[in-house]
Amino acid sequence: MNVGVVGLGYWGPNLVRNLYESHLCEQIYCCDLDDAKAEKIKSRYPTIITTRDYKELVQNPEINGTVIATPVSTHFPLAMEFLEAGKHVFVEKPFTPSPEKGAALVAKAEEKGLIVMVGHTFEYSPPVIKIKEIIDSGELGKIYYISASRVNLGLHQKDVSVIWDLAPHDFSCLFYWLGEQPKRLSAMGRDYVLKGVPDVAFINMEFASGCTAHVQVSWLAPSKLRRTAIIGSEKMLVYDDTETMEKVKIYDKGVDYKDPETFGEFQLSYRSGDIISPRLDTFEPLNREMRHFVECCEKGLTPKTDGHNGLRVVKALDAAERSLRAGGKIVEIA
Amino acid sequence: MNVGVVGLGYWGPNLVRNLYESHLCEQIYCCDLDDAKAEKIKSRYPTIITTRDYKELVQNPEINGTVIATPVSTHFPLAMEFLEAGKHVFVEKPFTPSPEKGAALVAKAEEKGLIVMVGHTFEYSPPVIKIKEIIDSGELGKIYYISASRVNLGLHQKDVSVIWDLAPHDFSCLFYWLGEQPKRLSAMGRDYVLKGVPDVAFINMEFASGCTAHVQVSWLAPSKLRRTAIIGSEKMLVYDDTETMEKVKIYDKGVDYKDPETFGEFQLSYRSGDIISPRLDTFEPLNREMRHFVECCEKGLTPKTDGHNGLRVVKALDAAERSLRAGGKIVEIA
Amino acid sequence: MNVGVVGLGYWGPNLVRNLYESHLCEQIYCCDLDDAKAEKIKSRYPTIITTRDYKELVQNPEINGTVIATPVSTHFPLAMEFLEAGKHVFVEKPFTPSPEKGAALVAKAEEKGLIVMVGHTFEYSPPVIKIKEIIDSGELGKIYYISASRVNLGLHQKDVSVIWDLAPHDFSCLFYWLGEQPKRLSAMGRDYVLKGVPDVAFINMEFASGCTAHVQVSWLAPSKLRRTAIIGSEKMLVYDDTETMEKVKIYDKGVDYKDPETFGEFQLSYRSGDIISPRLDTFEPLNREMRHFVECCEKGLTPKTDGHNGLRVVKALDAAERSLRAGGKIVEIA
Amino acid sequence: MNVGVVGLGYWGPNLVRNLYESHLCEQIYCCDLDDAKAEKIKSRYPTIITTRDYKELVQNPEINGTVIATPVSTHFPLAMEFLEAGKHVFVEKPFTPSPEKGAALVAKAEEKGLIVMVGHTFEYSPPVIKIKEIIDSGELGKIYYISASRVNLGLHQKDVSVIWDLAPHDFSCLFYWLGEQPKRLSAMGRDYVLKGVPDVAFINMEFASGCTAHVQVSWLAPSKLRRTAIIGSEKMLVYDDTETMEKVKIYDKGVDYKDPETFGEFQLSYRSGDIISPRLDTFEPLNREMRHFVECCEKGLTPKTDGHNGLRVVKALDAAERSLRAGGKIVEIA
Repeated sequence: MNVGVVGLGYWGPNLVRNLYESHLCEQIYCCDLDDAKAEKIKSRYPTIITTRDYKELVQNPEINGTVIATPVSTHFPLAMEFLEAGKHVFVEKPFTPSPEKGAALVAKAEEKGLIVMVGHTFEYSPPVIKIKEIIDSGELGKIYYISASRVNLGLHQKDVSVIWDLAPHDFSCLFYWLGEQPKRLSAMGRDYVLKGVPDVAFINMEFASGCTAHVQVSWLAPSKLRRTAIIGSEKMLVYDDTETMEKVKIYDKGVDYKDPETFGEFQLSYRSGDIISPRLDTFEPLNREMRHFVECCEKGLTPKTDGHNGLRVVKALDAAERSLRAGGKIVEIA
Repeated sequence: MNVGVVGLGYWGPNLVRNLYESHLCEQIYCCDLDDAKAEKIKSRYPTIITTRDYKELVQNPEINGTVIATPVSTHFPLAMEFLEAGKHVFVEKPFTPSPEKGAALVAKAEEKGLIVMVGHTFEYSPPVIKIKEIIDSGELGKIYYISASRVNLGLHQKDVSVIWDLAPHDFSCLFYWLGEQPKRLSAMGRDYVLKGVPDVAFINMEFASGCTAHVQVSWLAPSKLRRTAIIGSEKMLVYDDTETMEKVKIYDKGVDYKDPETFGEFQLSYRSGDIISPRLDTFEPLNREMRHFVECCEKGLTPKTDGHNGLRVVKALDAAERSLRAGGKIVEIA
Repeated sequence: MNVGVVGLGYWGPNLVRNLYESHLCEQIYCCDLDDAKAEKIKSRYPTIITTRDYKELVQNPEINGTVIATPVSTHFPLAMEFLEAGKHVFVEKPFTPSPEKGAALVAKAEEKGLIVMVGHTFEYSPPVIKIKEIIDSGELGKIYYISASRVNLGLHQKDVSVIWDLAPHDFSCLFYWLGEQPKRLSAMGRDYVLKGVPDVAFINMEFASGCTAHVQVSWLAPSKLRRTAIIGSEKMLVYDDTETMEKVKIYDKGVDYKDPETFGEFQLSYRSGDIISPRLDTFEPLNREMRHFVECCEKGLTPKTDGHNGLRVVKALDAAERSLRAGGKIVEIA
Repeated sequence: MNVGVVGLGYWGPNLVRNLYESHLCEQIYCCDLDDAKAEKIKSRYPTIITTRDYKELVQNPEINGTVIATPVSTHFPLAMEFLEAGKHVFVEKPFTPSPEKGAALVAKAEEKGLIVMVGHTFEYSPPVIKIKEIIDSGELGKIYYISASRVNLGLHQKDVSVIWDLAPHDFSCLFYWLGEQPKRLSAMGRDYVLKGVPDVAFINMEFASGCTAHVQVSWLAPSKLRRTAIIGSEKMLVYDDTETMEKVKIYDKGVDYKDPETFGEFQLSYRSGDIISPRLDTFEPLNREMRHFVECCEKGLTPKTDGHNGLRVVKALDAAERSLRAGGKIVEIA
């Protein structure tokens, strides 16, 4: 398999590094408008072929798959062009700037029998995978609610709100764990530093299962928080990605409700047991992700984070942004 | 000054202890329907006079002030009766179960020239007072937003939601720090364990100054969080009440926005400096509070946490509860 | 059973509180040279009989057991006099200021058929008991070494070094867990603030089993450390008494050594698994301790922390102090 | 300047990376017995010239300076040969396996007018430099004692004890901060996993200034500790290298001793003030170190971590190892 990579800015070189150093494909082609970036990647990985013009990659019959790591506004036209040219496509998150464009890419890929995969890297990370296993095992019981914070003094984007910048991580994890997308959400937020670009948002979501979720994202916070609490009827779990040793903790805690027999009063009993921090695997998520993309292309498999997966995240991002701009109005998701 | 205390349940004995051991008044009278509670307090503080009938306190001309530490549903009739009888009144938080009743008590106290004070104890605590001083000094700059969490596996109340149980603490601190009450809020929440009694809530607030706030309260959480982040244009502050040594930290962090001259692009610069945890005083908040009540009664001063203060918290609690029950609808506060 | 308590300073009232409020004995007699202290305890616990003269307790035939909570220099003569008078004795830690005096008390108690118990309260605390169970279960494997820190900015004693003030806690826990006392130790330390009174000490110990231990105690440290690491051949354990929720953590970590077959090289494999924080009971250690004393007196049982237990701690404290004063010389313990 | 690097094992490639990517020298030559390692470095940095035979570097007149990153047992003969050949030498820590060999290298360098520098990287790291500035400013007052822990489940070395593996870091920092080396030390330790190779050690040191220090190193510990507490007469400081945001904290805490006037008793007063975590620079220590080496070579300056610096660390390591093997005997350092 031969892979073309478009975009060598902040994230692209990490994708190239994994493709190259793990020998995941035969030939890598790279494209960036900035010659310096192309040269730098070539000095590090001499066998790579570089170009300034992505059209060369589109037209190159040797290339089977494309990795798109450009600004989000360009995802749609680029991906569409590569799909039209019969090439599998991997698109960095967020998938597209609107649900319509995401849906169009999904439809095109299906029409062409090609793979479209979205770079929701967290779904390939050891703690997130472990949490999915724990939830699916039923150990936590019915999931009541999830509360997530992703804040720190972060670089302001110019063209995209904090929702589109940070929330894709939490949304993709939440929907993956729960196996569903929200039916309704609302978001409050503000654009404190740069007018027109919200830098803090508080998002509330409701799911058909009865689960609710709260996601807090901010570029304006004194210290880094990457904390997700999952409250189940049987146990509770905390995932703190700033921890080095105990990223996941399972708390054997809960409340048992006993229905009053006949005329009695309700009775609650509280339970508090051991706390367990399970051992996690130590592989690099990005490596796992790139490996999965190549494998799916080669074997014709459906990626774990396929276009549908990317699309449901985009739908929620879009709804959250609309709610925020409407002052926190509740928005239904189709 | 002679003080009557009504209600010797969970909190009342703490108030009695401070009144008694700090010799804040001459004679203490206590009232509880449960004789065992009255006897227990008397065995510890032998000079206290006890009774089962609060009417005795109402009618006792020796008593100048009354401390009401009964369930919230009884605050209004009790306080009204004592005010009618010409006695100053201290009412535990939350002040009243509705804004109307709170307003009626405030009006009655003003009519009678009496003091009505509400037990927002946090406003008498060293970290909360220190934060007020820091904000007022301008050190943090303009306050952008505040995010607060108050969660742990807590005892479910039967007759009152988690909003009325836990949010009074955060609301009273926030309004005290900001010197204003929200003009609009919304709340999402659920009643997972006991139908009809919400046990988790996410509350968003907007203030006239442009500040926003988020308050998260829950009886269903694996570990105790008592964390408030205050984001200012100049510095940021974190107040973590679960910390023993560094409850308050000031972060010299921020983003400076430089308006583009003529045709240039906007420019942001990020600043990160020292972190300072200021030394805090070590007095007991409850003692400070009781001392303040007695002093206000004796000298005819307006309490820091007077009826207006209690009322603005009740208005916000009432609005949050209504929003929650209406599925997160935005509620305006008069 | 009727109990006399001698010494109402810092610690005595806590012992009285547990004896009184848990109804552990019928009549309590208290003695202190300071009338104010006697009066204060009487105002709180009205049925207590007080005196300024401990001889009255010695001579009172109603009293079966005595609790001694006076400065360590008076433990020996007081305890001896009460034993001579046929009364069971509980002595606060450290047991005696010298091994000789401790041995004399043990001998006297045995001669008289009386109980002598030492107030090593930690041996009655939930985390310390849990750790004993874990070690005895073999879960940690062979115990290699233990490292303990007990430091903070603490009140300097005038007449006693930091070793006699703080190390009794660690020594009693260590010897209890290991079921042995050290055969040899050394201590380095200094008297930085008050000449002649060491305020920091680093103590190394060797046990016959091959286990070693390090104990660090200081009154001169910026923040409170109460941390003990227990390294076993199979698992490792950390006990952090400053933690509120996870005082004990068991780490499934270790190194396996494989003996080289025939001519091969040694091989080590490293193991890292789950981390478990077991649920701990929540009883008050002091209550458990006082209850145990009364029960041992009434039933003629040997206390868990009997005179031999107290004596082995005194022997180690004495050896450590001698080593420190001899510049860190290794001292053998008989 | 042209630099030869000998040894491309674990650490060497990091040194090469900094020399190469920061353009610190013109031509880099690398040498390793393992061809695969040489090829790997060449594939990454194509202009590097590699060889299997270090003699080629010794004889190459183009090379001015050499970086030695081989096992410690080879440091002495390699460094001596390069010095003899007139080349400046940088040697990884620990400098040499014995004080005699270290002294011989220092003497040879002085004889030849060449630079010999030792890779005590921590002395080029932002927190360690900041602490040096704080101590030198007098802010902490007189330094009473320092307590350091460097432990975790670490890879066992076969030929070198935990003292020679981990203590060089702490020793170099301590001697740098204090500006002196210990006059006397003792060490207790054990070889629990691999007979003959100590894997845990507790080291006590005394300095001529009256300062004492304790260093605890272990390959057998459940979690990573990198904590150093510095106790001064005026303030105290904690350096925790496992922290990401607050590596250094200064505690305005202390005890003031007031000499008793005439016949009075001694008086102590305790002080507790703000805690400050100073902002630290963010440069990479290794880069700073390599840059310094090249600059010293080019300008004939004495390196901050010169041979004398390396030698005093070796003397202390040697003394600690001897003390440990003699059961904790106190060893004087010349």
